Amino acid sequence: MLVEHLKRVGRELPVHLDVIAFSEEEGVRFSSSFLGSRAVAGRFDGKLLEWQDADGHTLAAVMRDAGLDPARIPALARRREELMGYLEVHIEQGPVLLEEGLPVGIVSAIAGSVRSTVTITGTAGHAGTVPMTRRHDAAAAAAELVGTVGQLFVPNGATNIIPGRCELTLDIRAGDDAARDAAVSDVAAEIARVAARRGVSIESREVQRTATVPCSPRLQSLLADAVARAGITPRHLPSGAGHDAMMFDGLTDVAMLFVRCGNGGVSHSPREIITAEDADIAARVMLDAVLRLAETS
Amino acid sequence: MLVEHLKRVGRELPVHLDVIAFSEEEGVRFSSSFLGSRAVAGRFDGKLLEWQDADGHTLAAVMRDAGLDPARIPALARRREELMGYLEVHIEQGPVLLEEGLPVGIVSAIAGSVRSTVTITGTAGHAGTVPMTRRHDAAAAAAELVGTVGQLFVPNGATNIIPGRCELTLDIRAGDDAARDAAVSDVAAEIARVAARRGVSIESREVQRTATVPCSPRLQSLLADAVARAGITPRHLPSGAGHDAMMFDGLTDVAMLFVRCGNGGVSHSPREIITAEDADIAARVMLDAVLRLAETS
Repeated sequence: MLVEHLKRVGRELPVHLDVIAFSEEEGVRFSSSFLGSRAVAGRFDGKLLEWQDADGHTLAAVMRDAGLDPARIPALARRREELMGYLEVHIEQGPVLLEEGLPVGIVSAIAGSVRSTVTITGTAGHAGTVPMTRRHDAAAAAAELVGTVGQLFVPNGATNIIPGRCELTLDIRAGDDAARDAAVSDVAAEIARVAARRGVSIESREVQRTATVPCSPRLQSLLADAVARAGITPRHLPSGAGHDAMMFDGLTDVAMLFVRCGNGGVSHSPREIITAEDADIAARVMLDAVLRLAETS
Repeated sequence: MLVEHLKRVGRELPVHLDVIAFSEEEGVRFSSSFLGSRAVAGRFDGKLLEWQDADGHTLAAVMRDAGLDPARIPALARRREELMGYLEVHIEQGPVLLEEGLPVGIVSAIAGSVRSTVTITGTAGHAGTVPMTRRHDAAAAAAELVGTVGQLFVPNGATNIIPGRCELTLDIRAGDDAARDAAVSDVAAEIARVAARRGVSIESREVQRTATVPCSPRLQSLLADAVARAGITPRHLPSGAGHDAMMFDGLTDVAMLFVRCGNGGVSHSPREIITAEDADIAARVMLDAVLRLAETS
């Protein structure tokens, strides 16, 4: 929309502007996120080309079938000295802007996360015969853990068997790394207390740790000024979700504009939605910001 | 052992004694328990013959392959007027006798159970973007439920997705039906409170309800006297697990002798064990009890 407008009005920028829609931010098909942005940020590990999807096709084969040449990926990498900054527009995926009646907001930082898999081993037993006080119930121990438990199951469970094992995942996030790590420590200490009290063993394995990416104060101001000129109160808010912008951290200044998420802020669901009006506001704000950025170049 | 001994010493009873090892008390292969005892108690439903195991073989086909004739099952049914009583020896499957240092115990009643499947429906969302206070997390709601939760899982869960759905089973038992039903009501009320507080919907469906089977006071006394004559303190205790004896409730008097369970009372596990000494004591107690019962016939 933004570039279409610039072309339509015959406006030429004194800087180069790339508009990129990255593939596979989520990493659904190859279990690796940020595939497109990794390449453009020069962080694409060639080993990823051999990763397979659920049908056993490698990323390299899928690219070639689509008429793409995996050998050309390294050439996509941008160099630090040619970059002025990175701006990303994204749906908020949460209810904050919706509840505050704001169409857009400025991201202050992209929260890092620590993800762990947790295995609780207790003692299986017969539901009718082992007194409650003598049980080492793995699922009951799991019920005491906090945080976002996105995966949870009792392997080989049966209605009348006390769970001897329970497996779950933990995803802990915060607006900055210190707060996040403090929460991780608190959870680990509580896990140890639950294990001791219930006579179960709990093994927690960290599987992913990403650092919080602070957004550039300069670019945040640029976006906030543009938001204000559109007659909207500038609202800065952290992003709990990860985004392609993270790949450019350390390479150039990054900033993000969030667009209001409808339907109560529901995301990762067919009900995730933004309105055409909000999309239009976001485009106008970005146009304004890009023009100012170009002027100051 | 008992009948071998009677034969060896040439002792003939004035009554008929059937020694039966029932098949499929657990109901593992055809998802229906008490297959053998149902037949002998005259409670075998012919439809069971068409039930299939995991490989698609019907019970009727499996019986014929083993050289058995399904058509002869109805003839196995015992008639009320030909029965004096039913005595069953079973491992306790719990730690009570072990902890009290007793090799055997007398079952007072076999606890009935109410089994339910519970489905909790909340709202899925992104782990990083939905504030904790605004979540309708189905797994967090599940964590508040009590009782024996033998099966528990979040369908289609992912580390970074707030669970929108959680499925679990509940198994609630007590020594008598009134206490059991009171517990079922308490759990239902608590489920309603959790659902209201967390903004999730919880659907609970009762899938099985079995009545508590009280053991015959006359046969309990018979066993208790035999236990005492063996120099062991008679200990009456309820059975939390179901047993073949339940099938004979209403047909004849039933009683059970429990044998001490080793390894902390662990059951439904390869570590479930009784000692040869305890098996011998149980056989002697049963011999004594059977001889007394025969005398009073």
